[in-house]
Amino acid sequence: LNIRLALTGFGSVGKGFAELLQQFGEQYEREYGARLVLTGVADRGGAVVNPEGLDPTVLLEAKQRYLTVSGAHLGEPGLEGREFLQKTQANVLLEAASTNFEDAEPGWGYAREALGLGMDVVLASKGSLVLHYQELMEMARKQDARVLFSGAVGAPLPILELADRALIGAGLQGFEAILNGTSNQVLEAMSEGSTYEEGVTIAQEIGVAETDPTLDVDGWDAAAKAVILANALFGVHVGLQDVAREGIREVTASELKEAARDGSRIKLIVRMSKTAGGVQASVGPEKRSQLDVLGRLRGIELGIVFKTKLLGDVTSTIQDAGGVPTALTVVRDVFNLARDRGWVSQL
Amino acid sequence: LNIRLALTGFGSVGKGFAELLQQFGEQYEREYGARLVLTGVADRGGAVVNPEGLDPTVLLEAKQRYLTVSGAHLGEPGLEGREFLQKTQANVLLEAASTNFEDAEPGWGYAREALGLGMDVVLASKGSLVLHYQELMEMARKQDARVLFSGAVGAPLPILELADRALIGAGLQGFEAILNGTSNQVLEAMSEGSTYEEGVTIAQEIGVAETDPTLDVDGWDAAAKAVILANALFGVHVGLQDVAREGIREVTASELKEAARDGSRIKLIVRMSKTAGGVQASVGPEKRSQLDVLGRLRGIELGIVFKTKLLGDVTSTIQDAGGVPTALTVVRDVFNLARDRGWVSQL
Repeated sequence: LNIRLALTGFGSVGKGFAELLQQFGEQYEREYGARLVLTGVADRGGAVVNPEGLDPTVLLEAKQRYLTVSGAHLGEPGLEGREFLQKTQANVLLEAASTNFEDAEPGWGYAREALGLGMDVVLASKGSLVLHYQELMEMARKQDARVLFSGAVGAPLPILELADRALIGAGLQGFEAILNGTSNQVLEAMSEGSTYEEGVTIAQEIGVAETDPTLDVDGWDAAAKAVILANALFGVHVGLQDVAREGIREVTASELKEAARDGSRIKLIVRMSKTAGGVQASVGPEKRSQLDVLGRLRGIELGIVFKTKLLGDVTSTIQDAGGVPTALTVVRDVFNLARDRGWVSQL
Repeated sequence: LNIRLALTGFGSVGKGFAELLQQFGEQYEREYGARLVLTGVADRGGAVVNPEGLDPTVLLEAKQRYLTVSGAHLGEPGLEGREFLQKTQANVLLEAASTNFEDAEPGWGYAREALGLGMDVVLASKGSLVLHYQELMEMARKQDARVLFSGAVGAPLPILELADRALIGAGLQGFEAILNGTSNQVLEAMSEGSTYEEGVTIAQEIGVAETDPTLDVDGWDAAAKAVILANALFGVHVGLQDVAREGIREVTASELKEAARDGSRIKLIVRMSKTAGGVQASVGPEKRSQLDVLGRLRGIELGIVFKTKLLGDVTSTIQDAGGVPTALTVVRDVFNLARDRGWVSQL
């Protein structure tokens, strides 16, 4: 079985996905029962489409050489939108363009067009989920389509998988979490003597920083994830303005040093708790002990502590983030979708 | 939609399940789209069946008063096996009788009969998985039935859910884990000055100890979980004899004190790693730092550290174990099954 995929956005996640197909495509087919076939890729410079399948190596080379996939053989500068999607004949849209929280484009437009064409949608970008969660899910319901987005709410941290499959009946009350690698990497570098700017550079080199690092350090990225999770986990329709948000710019080197003295670290923490009418959500720096699940995390490590009525604290952490790990969330969303759709058998 | 359930075994997990239905049955129906209806329960003394549904409160009272559910109104002392299952008209067998690793009965017999009758099976007991994993899955395949068993491999710790839905493509290499609450509770009590016997009593009072605590303290329970996980995660057919096993009886109070002196604890750890031809698996006490994911766990808390190629260490821990939390794994298995079967819609 072939699953035909249209990919929009060819930055760190998109390229990471192409690298995964290059290295592990055949292994995935053996293990999970379907071949992932990229039938079209679009970036800002245009697109390249082949319903028979594109070679990931060719795509990566074209991007490297021409800064756009449309530089590849048969590439079409200027091809985009509905026309692009139709040509790909894809079963699933993978949306991985860079996020913006003003109009959520180009992701929002692509998601709508894809649903309209009867495709399922996997989102690694956050914009359309943050600004249009309800509308998106309503459209999906009408089309009997599915929208998966595990990469949009904490990179590869398995938040949605746990909530969806493992916390059934547990009585979820809220959570606290580290969902942004960049700001915590910056705080750690600063506590070891780096400047704020050096910390940002390190995060960019690791490949975890957003294109615009102010989205990370001012807490926008974490707040956006909180908004999506409020919708997804609690069915509560909040927006960015409903999250109390404080970034890490005000954290000083001396505060970091003082925290280190008693075995603590300052971390950018997302908190959410169910209330009578909705949720209370915040993002801000907190001092945490190294003995604590979140306080013990280093660098770009991510983690979540679910607060439940029947199981107490249920935690999960993850070590590696960045382009390839986030691309892996796209792979898992596609195969989970394929199983839920009955395209491949349950394990 | 009603999902009709036959339950075998009415010990801490079976009673926990009845308590969950009593307290949360209506809430589950609202949240997950199906009503869980117990149509028959069997224990050592007999059974009680009503295809229209049994009242959990009546079952719990009968067990309390007569030590068997067959003491309830319309109860049938002596009713068991295939005849019991047929009368229940159940869609799913929930097997939660106490585990034994000699012949895996009565669980093994019930699982086979249920599959033969076209039922799906949820196992909270380990025996049939440890002794007959391959045969069981082969029978399920032939019947186009499903066998779920998240409660058999570490109580409510979401091991299988993570492996199944979140580690897709991550390149699982192995894991280390705390999968037995009792032995770690005993070690902790001893490090705080209790005797070994007092530690066992505490674990029994919490409700996490196996009926026969030697299964816990000699590492059999942890080794059994390792056997099931070798089969489930790595497709490797090993038995109890293939797991290097050391219990906690040899751990002395002075070793525990010495460990505590440098901020460490002694924990009963399960280790597994993929090898060229299969897996290497062991169970034994290890000294772990309190800064470590597993070393920081207290009392009956359980945890796992998956070792992966693309995501580094992926961890999960859980605070509460015992009858009700394990019963909750049955609830989640039933609803996950219902979604995979299309009985209820995906979330």
